[in-house]
Amino acid sequence: MDDIRINADRLYDSLDELGKVGAFDDEFSDRQGVCRLALSDEDAEGRRLVRSWYEEAGLAVGVDQIGNVFATRKGTGHNLRPVMTGSHIDSVPTGGRFDGALGVLAGLEVVRTLNDAGMQTLRPITTAFFSDEEGCRFRTDMLGSAVATGRVALEHAWSLTDRDGKTVREELERIGFLGDEPVGERTPHAFVECHIEQGPLLIRGGQDLGVVTGVQGISWWEVSITGRSAHAGTTPTSFRNDAGLVAALINVRLREMADSGDFGEMRGTMGVTRPHPGAINVIPGRVAATVDLRNPDDAQMARAGEAIREHALVLAEQHGVQIEWQQTAKTGMVPFDESVQDRIEGIASDFGLQNTRLIAGAGHDAQEWAAVCKAGMIFVPGEDDGISHNPREFSTKKQCADGVNVLLHAILALTDKS
Amino acid sequence: MDDIRINADRLYDSLDELGKVGAFDDEFSDRQGVCRLALSDEDAEGRRLVRSWYEEAGLAVGVDQIGNVFATRKGTGHNLRPVMTGSHIDSVPTGGRFDGALGVLAGLEVVRTLNDAGMQTLRPITTAFFSDEEGCRFRTDMLGSAVATGRVALEHAWSLTDRDGKTVREELERIGFLGDEPVGERTPHAFVECHIEQGPLLIRGGQDLGVVTGVQGISWWEVSITGRSAHAGTTPTSFRNDAGLVAALINVRLREMADSGDFGEMRGTMGVTRPHPGAINVIPGRVAATVDLRNPDDAQMARAGEAIREHALVLAEQHGVQIEWQQTAKTGMVPFDESVQDRIEGIASDFGLQNTRLIAGAGHDAQEWAAVCKAGMIFVPGEDDGISHNPREFSTKKQCADGVNVLLHAILALTDKS
Repeated sequence: MDDIRINADRLYDSLDELGKVGAFDDEFSDRQGVCRLALSDEDAEGRRLVRSWYEEAGLAVGVDQIGNVFATRKGTGHNLRPVMTGSHIDSVPTGGRFDGALGVLAGLEVVRTLNDAGMQTLRPITTAFFSDEEGCRFRTDMLGSAVATGRVALEHAWSLTDRDGKTVREELERIGFLGDEPVGERTPHAFVECHIEQGPLLIRGGQDLGVVTGVQGISWWEVSITGRSAHAGTTPTSFRNDAGLVAALINVRLREMADSGDFGEMRGTMGVTRPHPGAINVIPGRVAATVDLRNPDDAQMARAGEAIREHALVLAEQHGVQIEWQQTAKTGMVPFDESVQDRIEGIASDFGLQNTRLIAGAGHDAQEWAAVCKAGMIFVPGEDDGISHNPREFSTKKQCADGVNVLLHAILALTDKS
Repeated sequence: MDDIRINADRLYDSLDELGKVGAFDDEFSDRQGVCRLALSDEDAEGRRLVRSWYEEAGLAVGVDQIGNVFATRKGTGHNLRPVMTGSHIDSVPTGGRFDGALGVLAGLEVVRTLNDAGMQTLRPITTAFFSDEEGCRFRTDMLGSAVATGRVALEHAWSLTDRDGKTVREELERIGFLGDEPVGERTPHAFVECHIEQGPLLIRGGQDLGVVTGVQGISWWEVSITGRSAHAGTTPTSFRNDAGLVAALINVRLREMADSGDFGEMRGTMGVTRPHPGAINVIPGRVAATVDLRNPDDAQMARAGEAIREHALVLAEQHGVQIEWQQTAKTGMVPFDESVQDRIEGIASDFGLQNTRLIAGAGHDAQEWAAVCKAGMIFVPGEDDGISHNPREFSTKKQCADGVNVLLHAILALTDKS
């Protein structure tokens, strides 16, 4: 293994710099979080900052029709497909500074390191960031990667709307990232993404790094419950059609299902409940809620989805409400390439890093790229049980640098040796 | 009994006219609802309309420091306290056209009827409307009446804020209803309010009219639940502090308590749940919720309040969250004057109206006035099980006219004969 190493200080400084874009103070700690909703002004500011760094690093920058930004460092070979790495700049409303940003700046740091060393690679290296990975705003996660790799059609993605009715296309245009490069023309030789774990397994297990075996399935639902708004003081129980109570009962049932073990390693979350009219003395007549299901087993995922909807039918009957389920995202379990896993594991062990294989609990851009090339992921542990989607999200400089050094050598191996 | 009668067409036309202020089309029926949140532009427009009708009727109009508007028709006696009637113009966000409006326009119609008949009364008659009865916006219901009758201090009421931080005082000033008349100087001889029942008892029982025996106790709470926002995909159940789930469990428990019968005629409602950050893939770290408890028995109300907070303590321990309860409104059971009840019942029976005594499920301005004078209420039945706080709220012209005719004669009796 070459003894080339990334510049940990520079990496961490860039994380600090990008972390100022959309920053807010946490109420409960002295940390800062970020709010960079996809295609918002803050997302755009982060995009421009990273693009300027790409340009300073002498990379050839292209923007595709879904706003993905690709920055390529030439290889010495002719017409070889690049090795790609990348992640996302957008965040959840109460995001931390590492989710996505680490993977984006990891790619930048790899290129900066190779530039400093004057080192050539056989294949080109493309470092990238992808639009709307979180899916919070337009309700379909990994959107940019999914369009680039063909799972989601461009026209459909463009037409998605946020709560205010703004479309992806008009927001891309507004922030200046509606590129002219056709989507789907960037199939890489291999794809490797560095990302924070966003969970407790590495830190609890005393691991320095995780080799990701795959990404569990995700099933997202928007649930519309329609009962009847009525006066809280005068309406006896028997006359109530309380949409808020039914949403609550679905939420409680999701936890019971997860705790039962009957649906494998299921996770279920109701992140949104918006009762209408939302007044203290009015029984909610309608609720808009969301259900997020995860499962590493596609069959168990299907069973869980059926079970909660069946239970909801019973609740609808009992409470005299109507319930509509609209699926807004669905991905099956995505296994990563075994040879990429082996290579990451070998490099990590050569570095003397304690490492383990684990499945990703969250969706990631790499799972979309896995559809078109061999792909893998490196997980970096996080403090505080790996808390994420929270301003307290935090990985140390060493934790980040370990992950990016392994990424650097994985990319070098993939560009020259396979 | 005099054979004087109100003009049902004129009453209903006025209801139509006021119902256009803040009107919106119902999604689920061909009816229109109203949204006239307290001290909003729509509330102000309704206030100006009714004030103009007061002035056309030759009444002496005064506005007090909390924005209550009093319109007085002179009596023939000297220095006698008036008989007062009144209700409110403000509505819940999805209100109907009758809640409050009927009582306000009932008072106007009584005065118009007496004017038409050229009829004098011994005592003056004051017809009024009171600020922010609903409490949806500034979170304390019956605010205007409560300030006028001394339960709530003026300075406290002025300082209450809405979600945007706007105070009652600045909003009163903005809409031009910050009067200069000191509060608390309008103690009447008696107070009678006509209002829709807002419940199913009269219509189900085939009754034309209800004689209200009192108003059940109300206890309002704002509940702040603080857990920890975390990633929905990566966070196993055992690491979750899900504020949204805890809110759901409190909601479910409220229904269980109401259904159990262990707390008398308790009603419990969670009308508001605002999870933060409110994203599909983030476990809610905080929830702002409301709890509305009602009970005609003060001891049972206290027991229910303790029971739900005790249960919440258990949930807080189980789920690793903090729960804070802030009481925003609290009124005990208010019994109405027996002689006023008897008089209303007598008049209704003389009119040949089927009537029954019943307790009010909702809070009403009359309960505040009951603290300073003998008071009573007349309930008018509503179609569709008396649905209210809903655009479908509806009482027929006859139902309304019956109530206002009984009000007219109750006022005449109170002004001249007692």
